[in-house]
Amino acid sequence: MQKIYFQCDYAEGACPEILERLAHTNLEQTLGYGEDIYCEQAAEKIRRACEDETLAVHFMVGGTQANLTIIDAALRAHQGVICAETGHINVHETGAVESCGHKVLALPCGEEGKLTAEQVRRVCREHNALGRDHMVQPGMVYLSSPTELGTIYSAAELKDLHEACREYGLYLFLDGARLGYGLAASDNDLTLPLLAKYTDVFYIGGTKVGALFGEAVVISSETLKKDFRYIMKQKGGLLAKGRLLGIQFDTLFTDGLYFEIAARANRYAEEIREAMRKKGYIFLASNHTNQIFVEMPDRDLEVLGERFVYSYDRRVDDTHSLVRFCTSWATKEGNVEALVHAIEAL
Amino acid sequence: MQKIYFQCDYAEGACPEILERLAHTNLEQTLGYGEDIYCEQAAEKIRRACEDETLAVHFMVGGTQANLTIIDAALRAHQGVICAETGHINVHETGAVESCGHKVLALPCGEEGKLTAEQVRRVCREHNALGRDHMVQPGMVYLSSPTELGTIYSAAELKDLHEACREYGLYLFLDGARLGYGLAASDNDLTLPLLAKYTDVFYIGGTKVGALFGEAVVISSETLKKDFRYIMKQKGGLLAKGRLLGIQFDTLFTDGLYFEIAARANRYAEEIREAMRKKGYIFLASNHTNQIFVEMPDRDLEVLGERFVYSYDRRVDDTHSLVRFCTSWATKEGNVEALVHAIEAL
Amino acid sequence: MQKIYFQCDYAEGACPEILERLAHTNLEQTLGYGEDIYCEQAAEKIRRACEDETLAVHFMVGGTQANLTIIDAALRAHQGVICAETGHINVHETGAVESCGHKVLALPCGEEGKLTAEQVRRVCREHNALGRDHMVQPGMVYLSSPTELGTIYSAAELKDLHEACREYGLYLFLDGARLGYGLAASDNDLTLPLLAKYTDVFYIGGTKVGALFGEAVVISSETLKKDFRYIMKQKGGLLAKGRLLGIQFDTLFTDGLYFEIAARANRYAEEIREAMRKKGYIFLASNHTNQIFVEMPDRDLEVLGERFVYSYDRRVDDTHSLVRFCTSWATKEGNVEALVHAIEAL
Amino acid sequence: MQKIYFQCDYAEGACPEILERLAHTNLEQTLGYGEDIYCEQAAEKIRRACEDETLAVHFMVGGTQANLTIIDAALRAHQGVICAETGHINVHETGAVESCGHKVLALPCGEEGKLTAEQVRRVCREHNALGRDHMVQPGMVYLSSPTELGTIYSAAELKDLHEACREYGLYLFLDGARLGYGLAASDNDLTLPLLAKYTDVFYIGGTKVGALFGEAVVISSETLKKDFRYIMKQKGGLLAKGRLLGIQFDTLFTDGLYFEIAARANRYAEEIREAMRKKGYIFLASNHTNQIFVEMPDRDLEVLGERFVYSYDRRVDDTHSLVRFCTSWATKEGNVEALVHAIEAL
Repeated sequence: MQKIYFQCDYAEGACPEILERLAHTNLEQTLGYGEDIYCEQAAEKIRRACEDETLAVHFMVGGTQANLTIIDAALRAHQGVICAETGHINVHETGAVESCGHKVLALPCGEEGKLTAEQVRRVCREHNALGRDHMVQPGMVYLSSPTELGTIYSAAELKDLHEACREYGLYLFLDGARLGYGLAASDNDLTLPLLAKYTDVFYIGGTKVGALFGEAVVISSETLKKDFRYIMKQKGGLLAKGRLLGIQFDTLFTDGLYFEIAARANRYAEEIREAMRKKGYIFLASNHTNQIFVEMPDRDLEVLGERFVYSYDRRVDDTHSLVRFCTSWATKEGNVEALVHAIEAL
Repeated sequence: MQKIYFQCDYAEGACPEILERLAHTNLEQTLGYGEDIYCEQAAEKIRRACEDETLAVHFMVGGTQANLTIIDAALRAHQGVICAETGHINVHETGAVESCGHKVLALPCGEEGKLTAEQVRRVCREHNALGRDHMVQPGMVYLSSPTELGTIYSAAELKDLHEACREYGLYLFLDGARLGYGLAASDNDLTLPLLAKYTDVFYIGGTKVGALFGEAVVISSETLKKDFRYIMKQKGGLLAKGRLLGIQFDTLFTDGLYFEIAARANRYAEEIREAMRKKGYIFLASNHTNQIFVEMPDRDLEVLGERFVYSYDRRVDDTHSLVRFCTSWATKEGNVEALVHAIEAL
Repeated sequence: MQKIYFQCDYAEGACPEILERLAHTNLEQTLGYGEDIYCEQAAEKIRRACEDETLAVHFMVGGTQANLTIIDAALRAHQGVICAETGHINVHETGAVESCGHKVLALPCGEEGKLTAEQVRRVCREHNALGRDHMVQPGMVYLSSPTELGTIYSAAELKDLHEACREYGLYLFLDGARLGYGLAASDNDLTLPLLAKYTDVFYIGGTKVGALFGEAVVISSETLKKDFRYIMKQKGGLLAKGRLLGIQFDTLFTDGLYFEIAARANRYAEEIREAMRKKGYIFLASNHTNQIFVEMPDRDLEVLGERFVYSYDRRVDDTHSLVRFCTSWATKEGNVEALVHAIEAL
Repeated sequence: MQKIYFQCDYAEGACPEILERLAHTNLEQTLGYGEDIYCEQAAEKIRRACEDETLAVHFMVGGTQANLTIIDAALRAHQGVICAETGHINVHETGAVESCGHKVLALPCGEEGKLTAEQVRRVCREHNALGRDHMVQPGMVYLSSPTELGTIYSAAELKDLHEACREYGLYLFLDGARLGYGLAASDNDLTLPLLAKYTDVFYIGGTKVGALFGEAVVISSETLKKDFRYIMKQKGGLLAKGRLLGIQFDTLFTDGLYFEIAARANRYAEEIREAMRKKGYIFLASNHTNQIFVEMPDRDLEVLGERFVYSYDRRVDDTHSLVRFCTSWATKEGNVEALVHAIEAL
């Protein structure tokens, strides 16, 4: 019997609405490289959702690509990017940022996986006080929200980081590979307009939130807007049939689909969390998005592992491990119920 | 009225067979990053078509990405890549290869857009005779077939280049973004097994030959095989839902679909060429693939331009221009007929 | 018997005045990394010679280092540097510029080895008209004066290039590895103040003009001044005992030493040229600096080669070759006489 | 009154013997770029001192340059270099390694500033067990000895690291910017032959040990030897008048000068340490080289600061700071006595 996957949020294809649109438009002839009508339509919808008509919106295929392109577009040769030590660019992109010539300045971040404005200020103050030209100059702050640990930044935290970045002349970049799940979380107070206001650039993740693939990069910084497509092209990130991205984001931003599917995934995650909570399992950090980081007894994991696939993180002690269960836009209600029952039965 | 596009071979989506497969498999759960069953199946079919079970096959989203990844994987820091001056990596990738630290060593190539083994030998001899460590060391030869000008390499030419590369310790890499059209050309004598034998790495283009997107990278060199996925990931070229690529290539390599659609595009191009030939237009170089580079009187172009879109290349003289008409896997018979009639009516 | 070297201008150590200063100051204790009093003194003298107190002056060890640091400091990731095809950065630095991620946009330059403002304008116009974001964006013009072929730019030519660069938003950078010989040439009308005015950055070569080593980088562009030392450090170009550079340039810019030794080398070159002219040898390009590019019969070269070392460039025809003879600040009068006599005796 | 510098080991010029040799050879004509007789002589002496005639020896101007050249020569694009978190390449080279595209994999190292073979093995095991191609692959281990904190590796520790590197296919590179002080330390059991045997590449620092500038890179790895000069040239590290380096190292390796001056500096450091020990000051780590890292009361520092310059590291508590006092080959006996008396008088 095929096991049920809860190990990641990219195990399936795309929302049926997207496949239908792709099929429907398949033989239309359009210009390439994102200069088609669908990209323009999708960009316009995103600008409207962000309540800022001046934003530049570009569509890229994946997250690592978006990260390295944005960071290399922003930094001068001697600058680095401040990042939580658990940040995706620091640990899971095979040195993509360094490959573009820039150091990732990793900071400790605790179980929440988050940076604080005060950390940013301290790093900049120390840089200015110390070696200066013998050390990498901070040029950007990279956040992700939800973080790698499923937690989210509040509006106040983001505003504070924005101010710290302004004080020290840093760009603020937010990786939103799972942004939908963050915006739809029950304890979230961030919005797209606030994201556009407080960051210089962020992206709206599609790959993990309903699309076949794709991230919508939203730029408010005027200096970053300049010549951004050149750098996309140079890094291999300008999709020939750019319309595929336009069509997908146009669909996701029609009738609130993006938010609806993310909210459903979060709801399913809450149901699973509730079952785990009853068993007394300990969560890594408190969060309400689609990722569940939980410490469980190895013997329980062994039983669940017979029917369900989860993602193994690390050993906690002799009899417990930290694992991740993940829901997504594609998670089926029946599978959630099956998992909940299996947990209850442990 | 919507004009008819003949200006490129990536104006539409994908073969209907591909869209159907994507829809059919949409909610299956698979591993990510190309480690799914569809990628394995597609790789196996390609290995079989190349008659070499030892080949490594990787799937990437686009051509620039594939080019920069392969070249950076192959070269040491001080090495450059020999390329025809019209080569895609030299002129149309915004310096992607240089962005990875490597010089493109551009050689003159005439109207055919092709390199010869003798040119490669001469460059290497001169390098060894001259400045040596003050100059970039040739480390690889990059070819495309069909070239940017629609011409193709013969088996004998490729074999000769292969031997020149062996003599001087260079990798031989063939960019096959339009490979299908080359292999299906009436004057072609290359085959997939010969490509696998005579190159160290080549790729089978999907983006321009029936897929939504995707290139299948085929590696025979043992040193290049090593750790290739690391470099794909680093460059942002490891698609999260890698199965999308596997499914597409599996479909293209089922029942000869890839070759069938390419042959049809070539046939349509021949019909258009025939009509042009009758009008006495001059072709840039003799070729039988899907791209038609032709010098035409400006007044004829103006008339055609009212209904058809072509790609403008350059002014030839006061009254003539060089333009490109392109067919593709998606070209409709009726549109070819309309263009042929329009030419005849000039 | 030891042969006499005329094959380059870096075969000896340094002006005796420099060695004396180094010995004299040897055990003084100073700050490192160019923050000492000698660097400040030398910078001040150079600013005064350039008649501009706002210039930033930095000292680097060698030319390739200076070139790559300046270019990488100036360009964004997608930009390249326009250069004569014979330019040092294009052919003799093992791809140092590409190693920093930037394409060298090489233009034909004829026997003079020079670029024109009109060429720069044409390249920029074509870039803006054509592919744009699929092609490398010109971001800087690199000149050398004297060029690799010993020719020099006039004040009018430099002014014209300056204007072309302003029109298209390019930096103008002049590599002055042999600047002394250019400024001291009998047909020169450039001056340090004009160089500071018409370029964004240039350097005053020491390695080939009297110093043990060292180039003085002079920056007028405000954007380039910013954080330049960070990039020097990153590229390994910030000498620990920076004072060694300060002391050398301070000495060269005391009592006109730099210009005096360069003028003498030019004078010697003229004497040699005169002897060659009488023999009817053909010069590659007309020039009055320390490098003599001359076509000579192979049998004459063979005779001279028994006592003198020259630099072989290329075969011209079956019986003639192009070679270079070079004088320098260190050339001894007696050796010039010996060479002149030997030529006369051919 | 001029203060006395104990803040670094590069505050003066060079050993008088070196200046004399430079003056003596000044007007000799030699080939450039390290192909002269002095470089060959110096290389030969170093090979002999290392008891290995197969070693490749190259001379470079400075440490950052040597580090980035060696590391970029060794690593493929997806590889990084393991380094103590206090390592020079991690903190004080403005991201030079990242600028070449490689991540520095920084490990905690305690007050000793040293890595252990067990740490290396653990990192490699974890890499092989975990994400693999999503993470940077360790390709090299970078050590310095003496470390940034003045401590040294024992022969047994280096042998163990060598074995760990062999097990996991890593290069082992030792930065010997202060190697002389390490080899001359009273508790040292490493030798040049052992260094050549247990590392793939190391360098013998001149800049901080008696030379005006210069590091002698010693390579035993056959793959690293190949084409190393190309990469030196590309990074701007091939000095035109290479003989300046050859002459300096030839002098340092004549009659044991290099070891003699280092031993004297260590002896002076011991005298200062002894005076400090009597005052009850606490040392950061036990070491016997030329750097003294010591915690001192701020009021004592204030008194000493009136006559002596030291290097400030960081605040320890409200009334104490960590500072560095440094002796060198150039330290004068009288100045040591003055400092010792001043400490005793506190």
